[in-house]
Amino acid sequence: MSDDVRFDWQRKTRTGVPEVVLAQNKTVEQLVGIAQQCIERKHRVFMTRVSPDKAAAMAGLIPQHIQFHAESGTVYIGEIPIGVDLIDVGDPNSEPDTDAVSVVPRTRIAIVAAGTSDVPVVAEIEQTLLYLGERSTRYVDVGVAGLWRLCDLADELSSYPLLIAVAGMEGALFSVLAGLVPSPVIAVPVSVGYGVGEGGHVALNSALSSCVPGIAVVNIDNGFGAAALAVKMLGSAR
Amino acid sequence: MSDDVRFDWQRKTRTGVPEVVLAQNKTVEQLVGIAQQCIERKHRVFMTRVSPDKAAAMAGLIPQHIQFHAESGTVYIGEIPIGVDLIDVGDPNSEPDTDAVSVVPRTRIAIVAAGTSDVPVVAEIEQTLLYLGERSTRYVDVGVAGLWRLCDLADELSSYPLLIAVAGMEGALFSVLAGLVPSPVIAVPVSVGYGVGEGGHVALNSALSSCVPGIAVVNIDNGFGAAALAVKMLGSAR
Amino acid sequence: MSDDVRFDWQRKTRTGVPEVVLAQNKTVEQLVGIAQQCIERKHRVFMTRVSPDKAAAMAGLIPQHIQFHAESGTVYIGEIPIGVDLIDVGDPNSEPDTDAVSVVPRTRIAIVAAGTSDVPVVAEIEQTLLYLGERSTRYVDVGVAGLWRLCDLADELSSYPLLIAVAGMEGALFSVLAGLVPSPVIAVPVSVGYGVGEGGHVALNSALSSCVPGIAVVNIDNGFGAAALAVKMLGSAR
Amino acid sequence: MSDDVRFDWQRKTRTGVPEVVLAQNKTVEQLVGIAQQCIERKHRVFMTRVSPDKAAAMAGLIPQHIQFHAESGTVYIGEIPIGVDLIDVGDPNSEPDTDAVSVVPRTRIAIVAAGTSDVPVVAEIEQTLLYLGERSTRYVDVGVAGLWRLCDLADELSSYPLLIAVAGMEGALFSVLAGLVPSPVIAVPVSVGYGVGEGGHVALNSALSSCVPGIAVVNIDNGFGAAALAVKMLGSAR
Amino acid sequence: MSDDVRFDWQRKTRTGVPEVVLAQNKTVEQLVGIAQQCIERKHRVFMTRVSPDKAAAMAGLIPQHIQFHAESGTVYIGEIPIGVDLIDVGDPNSEPDTDAVSVVPRTRIAIVAAGTSDVPVVAEIEQTLLYLGERSTRYVDVGVAGLWRLCDLADELSSYPLLIAVAGMEGALFSVLAGLVPSPVIAVPVSVGYGVGEGGHVALNSALSSCVPGIAVVNIDNGFGAAALAVKMLGSAR
Amino acid sequence: MSDDVRFDWQRKTRTGVPEVVLAQNKTVEQLVGIAQQCIERKHRVFMTRVSPDKAAAMAGLIPQHIQFHAESGTVYIGEIPIGVDLIDVGDPNSEPDTDAVSVVPRTRIAIVAAGTSDVPVVAEIEQTLLYLGERSTRYVDVGVAGLWRLCDLADELSSYPLLIAVAGMEGALFSVLAGLVPSPVIAVPVSVGYGVGEGGHVALNSALSSCVPGIAVVNIDNGFGAAALAVKMLGSAR
Amino acid sequence: MSDDVRFDWQRKTRTGVPEVVLAQNKTVEQLVGIAQQCIERKHRVFMTRVSPDKAAAMAGLIPQHIQFHAESGTVYIGEIPIGVDLIDVGDPNSEPDTDAVSVVPRTRIAIVAAGTSDVPVVAEIEQTLLYLGERSTRYVDVGVAGLWRLCDLADELSSYPLLIAVAGMEGALFSVLAGLVPSPVIAVPVSVGYGVGEGGHVALNSALSSCVPGIAVVNIDNGFGAAALAVKMLGSAR
Amino acid sequence: MSDDVRFDWQRKTRTGVPEVVLAQNKTVEQLVGIAQQCIERKHRVFMTRVSPDKAAAMAGLIPQHIQFHAESGTVYIGEIPIGVDLIDVGDPNSEPDTDAVSVVPRTRIAIVAAGTSDVPVVAEIEQTLLYLGERSTRYVDVGVAGLWRLCDLADELSSYPLLIAVAGMEGALFSVLAGLVPSPVIAVPVSVGYGVGEGGHVALNSALSSCVPGIAVVNIDNGFGAAALAVKMLGSAR
Repeated sequence: MSDDVRFDWQRKTRTGVPEVVLAQNKTVEQLVGIAQQCIERKHRVFMTRVSPDKAAAMAGLIPQHIQFHAESGTVYIGEIPIGVDLIDVGDPNSEPDTDAVSVVPRTRIAIVAAGTSDVPVVAEIEQTLLYLGERSTRYVDVGVAGLWRLCDLADELSSYPLLIAVAGMEGALFSVLAGLVPSPVIAVPVSVGYGVGEGGHVALNSALSSCVPGIAVVNIDNGFGAAALAVKMLGSAR
Repeated sequence: MSDDVRFDWQRKTRTGVPEVVLAQNKTVEQLVGIAQQCIERKHRVFMTRVSPDKAAAMAGLIPQHIQFHAESGTVYIGEIPIGVDLIDVGDPNSEPDTDAVSVVPRTRIAIVAAGTSDVPVVAEIEQTLLYLGERSTRYVDVGVAGLWRLCDLADELSSYPLLIAVAGMEGALFSVLAGLVPSPVIAVPVSVGYGVGEGGHVALNSALSSCVPGIAVVNIDNGFGAAALAVKMLGSAR
Repeated sequence: MSDDVRFDWQRKTRTGVPEVVLAQNKTVEQLVGIAQQCIERKHRVFMTRVSPDKAAAMAGLIPQHIQFHAESGTVYIGEIPIGVDLIDVGDPNSEPDTDAVSVVPRTRIAIVAAGTSDVPVVAEIEQTLLYLGERSTRYVDVGVAGLWRLCDLADELSSYPLLIAVAGMEGALFSVLAGLVPSPVIAVPVSVGYGVGEGGHVALNSALSSCVPGIAVVNIDNGFGAAALAVKMLGSAR
Repeated sequence: MSDDVRFDWQRKTRTGVPEVVLAQNKTVEQLVGIAQQCIERKHRVFMTRVSPDKAAAMAGLIPQHIQFHAESGTVYIGEIPIGVDLIDVGDPNSEPDTDAVSVVPRTRIAIVAAGTSDVPVVAEIEQTLLYLGERSTRYVDVGVAGLWRLCDLADELSSYPLLIAVAGMEGALFSVLAGLVPSPVIAVPVSVGYGVGEGGHVALNSALSSCVPGIAVVNIDNGFGAAALAVKMLGSAR
Repeated sequence: MSDDVRFDWQRKTRTGVPEVVLAQNKTVEQLVGIAQQCIERKHRVFMTRVSPDKAAAMAGLIPQHIQFHAESGTVYIGEIPIGVDLIDVGDPNSEPDTDAVSVVPRTRIAIVAAGTSDVPVVAEIEQTLLYLGERSTRYVDVGVAGLWRLCDLADELSSYPLLIAVAGMEGALFSVLAGLVPSPVIAVPVSVGYGVGEGGHVALNSALSSCVPGIAVVNIDNGFGAAALAVKMLGSAR
Repeated sequence: MSDDVRFDWQRKTRTGVPEVVLAQNKTVEQLVGIAQQCIERKHRVFMTRVSPDKAAAMAGLIPQHIQFHAESGTVYIGEIPIGVDLIDVGDPNSEPDTDAVSVVPRTRIAIVAAGTSDVPVVAEIEQTLLYLGERSTRYVDVGVAGLWRLCDLADELSSYPLLIAVAGMEGALFSVLAGLVPSPVIAVPVSVGYGVGEGGHVALNSALSSCVPGIAVVNIDNGFGAAALAVKMLGSAR
Repeated sequence: MSDDVRFDWQRKTRTGVPEVVLAQNKTVEQLVGIAQQCIERKHRVFMTRVSPDKAAAMAGLIPQHIQFHAESGTVYIGEIPIGVDLIDVGDPNSEPDTDAVSVVPRTRIAIVAAGTSDVPVVAEIEQTLLYLGERSTRYVDVGVAGLWRLCDLADELSSYPLLIAVAGMEGALFSVLAGLVPSPVIAVPVSVGYGVGEGGHVALNSALSSCVPGIAVVNIDNGFGAAALAVKMLGSAR
Repeated sequence: MSDDVRFDWQRKTRTGVPEVVLAQNKTVEQLVGIAQQCIERKHRVFMTRVSPDKAAAMAGLIPQHIQFHAESGTVYIGEIPIGVDLIDVGDPNSEPDTDAVSVVPRTRIAIVAAGTSDVPVVAEIEQTLLYLGERSTRYVDVGVAGLWRLCDLADELSSYPLLIAVAGMEGALFSVLAGLVPSPVIAVPVSVGYGVGEGGHVALNSALSSCVPGIAVVNIDNGFGAAALAVKMLGSAR
């Protein structure tokens, strides 16, 4: 079956983003086959939407250099740990220093999420950004129900050259955030919700029909796509 | 054809809101027939979604006591002008006195609309409220794209016992407004928009899947329904 | 991960309804994290859409003061049992005294459901109302297929200042009930049905396009939202 | 172009209902061609969804024996006037004698419509029934908003062997009527409504997902189909 | 919880069809509660969409007189076995005697199904008909892909006063069958299919937009509804 | 504006079908610009979905060699009349000789249409085929409502190497025809119908979910695409 | 239950493709019943969409001559192994000889798939083709993201008389491939994707609305239908 | 009515893009009211989706400084002509110099459109960019049907820091273009198409579910939004 795989080795050179494997509809055999091709060529590989079961099966077959990140459902295979070759622009995991006189973002990308239910998508964005060589800062649980949370952060968020907004349900966060900051906003609708909100289509359509311009929309739950677009927008693909 | 009409004369007694005629799919002949039954019984009548053409044709056939309100597309027929028997609680058409020390709403209902395109629905709400005996105050063009417009009004809007929010496109106004005020918000989605926003379905679904509770949703463009619900909620139907 | 949570402690003061946790798309770890923040602050917390598995896992980790209500799928955490601080307006669980000379509602809210399949949503409404400090009375299995059941109750139901109607399938109950009573009706469509009725969209759309005004619609299965809206409409949030 | 027409002359013998021409998507030339074939064979013909313009154009080309019925949008061509060969079971256009001791229906089919906006579909049913040899009785404006109108008629309507219900918007009439009478109910959804109700799909889906069995559903606005089904159900096709 | 049940004991008298329990969204506790009410009153009860698990649980709690029919997913509870009180009009399970000189249907209802995948719905129709006192004859696997199967049966099928057609996928059977027989056809779309055909909506819409009149459509998979409508149409409810 | 046009002159060599202009969303100026480029290069050009108004405007600006075919809404521009260079395989406009001992199709393609409303699409197929060098034979008004019409033609239709079926409403013709003939069937759904059938989506989905294999589906109303596919399938592109 | 099966033994003679069993919605009992009828008549049988569980259960009941092909989910029952009676036109499993001076396809059908996730549908096509007597050549992982993969193959693919394109997500492969080759392309949309791409509807609609003519579309995941259409198009059904 | 307008004068400072007026659902009176406020403040104003009729009516009322651009449907009001204050980076209207040794883009933004039907949206993008201070270069009619047109331009297009792709129908251009260039691509789906492609939803969903990352999607026909996003992405808003 490995004959079925024609890996696009030159994609990074051509488009700035290397090929990433969407594991969702692939069998463990197919994923291992792709991974082995990459290991043979000493090519790093990154996989998204990997279930814990698939990750465990893969780790049993190709134990070396494989990292499964559970919160994001991603697998990274490579000799150098993911994110190690990043240019250091500060510690993205520390608390933002909101009392500082002048606001200085510690990374170039802010990820702003409406609620804790959006965390898996946030994590997929973060891990993909690390794979592509970019740190980011996470702002979770700042939905518009408590608008003060977003308004308190407005100045800090305005200092980032790029923002990624993550929201399900009605996706009002996209419009409100885009109306507060000068930088472009990538909107990632999330399939969180029920009734008319089930599947994330309301959040998607809210982002698309926003009354505020400057929103770049990607597919529902497409954390990988948002990260790749962000890197392209920053011109930082290495 | 007038035999086809069985007017529900007791509806106000039973439900608090008298029967109102939806003119959209009725012929001029049918509308005139209904009007004449009401005139004979000295019963006021109110019609919504009346096109200027239909209004002119009706005025030619039953000229007495007929009032066409063009901005809202409503027709009122009755001896006493619409709104004359209101309890006076201030002048709803004057500028809000935002510098006042303590905020006092001049009416019991605030109508908050995202943009000038929503004005026809706002007007239908206002006229229906007048027919039902209730004044209201209009706040137009306070969409979330310029959030300061809404935040500046937050205290004033919080003083109303009831708010009606009117918005098309992505309908983010519903969530943001409901997160700022203690009173219930009636959401009226408007069929303003294009692409995925065409027809008002995104605004409707945003209202329904809002992350903020306390929103009472009515059908797209249903200004009449919002007004009737408002009157019922205030317990003020006379 | 608890850094991801920014609980909106002031929401009750600002909007009249405290923040409630939608457990559906959250992990046990996230839910426990939120709960512990609340316990530390001696803040009550209420969670909806909690599966029995998640409830059991939570009870194992934070056993104190946790109550799981299986019929409604809700979890309550607080030192004082839910509903204990209610103003007593009668026993909502006794049989209605339909033979009484003058009809006196025993609570301020009647919950009217079409069938026994709607009971989980009815229970979510009841438990949320208790958390928000309001009793209610339950009328189940009064769908329009046997219209006499509803007509027999018409006078009794007309005495409530507020009604919540719960129905799946075609949702005819919303229109019929709203045509019989003077008070506003909150319509909660339920995802009971199959074929075209699957997912509750027909019931939702029936409520929205009802020929009877005065219906406040919330999202499908949104028992929590209906309860919060009811409390706001009654102005009873404490 | 007349070579394109292969009229199904034997359809009545085979299926009980003769071929009827749906004029909506046909040109005047095509309609006249069909009519002339019928006239040559001394075969009656009936056309539905004929616009006034098309009817006038046809009347100019084949003036003899052509009847246009404007309320229903139907054209009848035949030497004997439509309905003349009916068995007389009473005068369907007179007022129902509701004070009679025992209720006797004057026809075998009751057409029950929710509002005056449904009248064009009611008329298409009536005219098709006349063409197929069956009288009917019309009950218009008995929607569920004023339930008393329907309840008052319950006994009378129960005496018909067959009922045809016509309603747009949320179509609650279908369920309520079917729960009151022992005979089968044919539901004809009508494309009256706006917002989610636009196009008649909510009424259609309400009929299909009704909690009351015994409802035979036809397509939106399909007055012809309802009449043909009614005649088949009565076994009365001649 | 049994207080939640208001069984409609008079429904058969009023509408000709007794109340039947849709088990799909009810718990075992709710179903047993309903059954016990019926057993106490010596009232037969019939349940549809009962899973084998629910049936086994019920049989453990109320073992007497309970019959589970696996092919149709129905449960019958009553002292007299289902179908015993039928008027005998022949053996519906024997091979049709197609060589007979004159065709005589052995029952009043023919159930015509496109394929073997439709058998569960066919069985629900058969069992419901038996509960309502009516036998039927089953013709399965006569889809239009092999049109000769249907054409060979045309004369035999034409002799039935009523036909019920059951089909998924594109539902062409509805139109073809209705074009061959003089009696009305009840169309039951089935949720068999994949891709665009998933869920049965194509079959449903094919039935509704058929070019052949005389088709009475019911909801997808609604075998019970088809049977109830059939009995009403035959005027045979006892 | 003519700089905006990059005509694909080599398309016929590369794919077997020359570029054809879809006029629907183009202005008269754009169409004339394209036509003039073709005339200068002595390149024939064919346009579909041309309204009579646009055709008249074009004929005023470039009168030479322009042919408008009203029934199909097509425009042909070229020195040699359309269809003149066809290989003669008989007269496609004469009556089929159904009494012949052995059936010989007069062309290689049969176009089978359900009703006279489908004629515009049939004509677009015919004219496109002529432009591409292929005659065809038209069989109109053979829908399944009168199945005898199709069955009578079964042998004749079976003799064609390729069939194009054209139908709106429920599209049962696609399945029935494909079950009768050995050659592949191209299905062209037509936007004829109302209610659920409006826009042709039911016919499209019926073709896609047909229980009969061997159906090649094209877009709704896509007569041009069906003709181009037919020519490719016959390998006859010259 | 075997009485429910009316196998269409003559279908191959009539339409060129023998009846194939869609196992998805059939029980093991039904499948075994069909298989035994075929074994008794010494008739080969082919089943698609067979789960491993069903295949194992069938193999336990009728062990002789049964072959389960796991990658495609197909079962073949027959004395002669599947594909043994093929005319040999080369080894379809060897690497294509892309350096050959003149390109000679080794089979008549190329299957071109966008990614490895499409392999199950590719395999269903291959196995069905073998059953129908036709070999094919597989080109997997040539999606448009790395366009060079497709362009490198353009000459080789152009030499096939027929191509089957298999793609999920946005289905751009259909248009791009059809614009590069002279032969017709059968498009098989695949239900691979998430968000708006879930279920394969975007790929389907892309194929239908392609700007390139000459694409024959089949239902989502319908590998069997594509293979049957291919055999009909090649006129090779034996 | 001018009281209804609360122009967001600070929007450019806050978000980088000044407020632009969507004229589609506004009356001439509303548009003139907004324009006059701007003229009084010497503030430039830009309006999109202005019909020729509305533009003419506005020009009659406020003739000074008003420019209507018919191809794009935009109105510009300001003392300095639109685009005059641009930094000159070459003549965007001249032919690209494709034979140059090294490719140098003449502007920072390439607008790539699939066909001439997309020109109105292309023009709206161009005019909005000019208003926002940015030139662009137009590449029209480079759809994937003739892939050579796009491949020939690949190197030239790769030299732009930003591309805007405009396409209707199946929108394959988005994926193909994004796979060829290193810069981000803004996808603007266009409502060009018919059948399943009507309204532009297939093109939109193709862009969202593209197999190629790095695509920023905006609403259907949203040329203004694409231009605003482009300016934000370039950080060039002045």
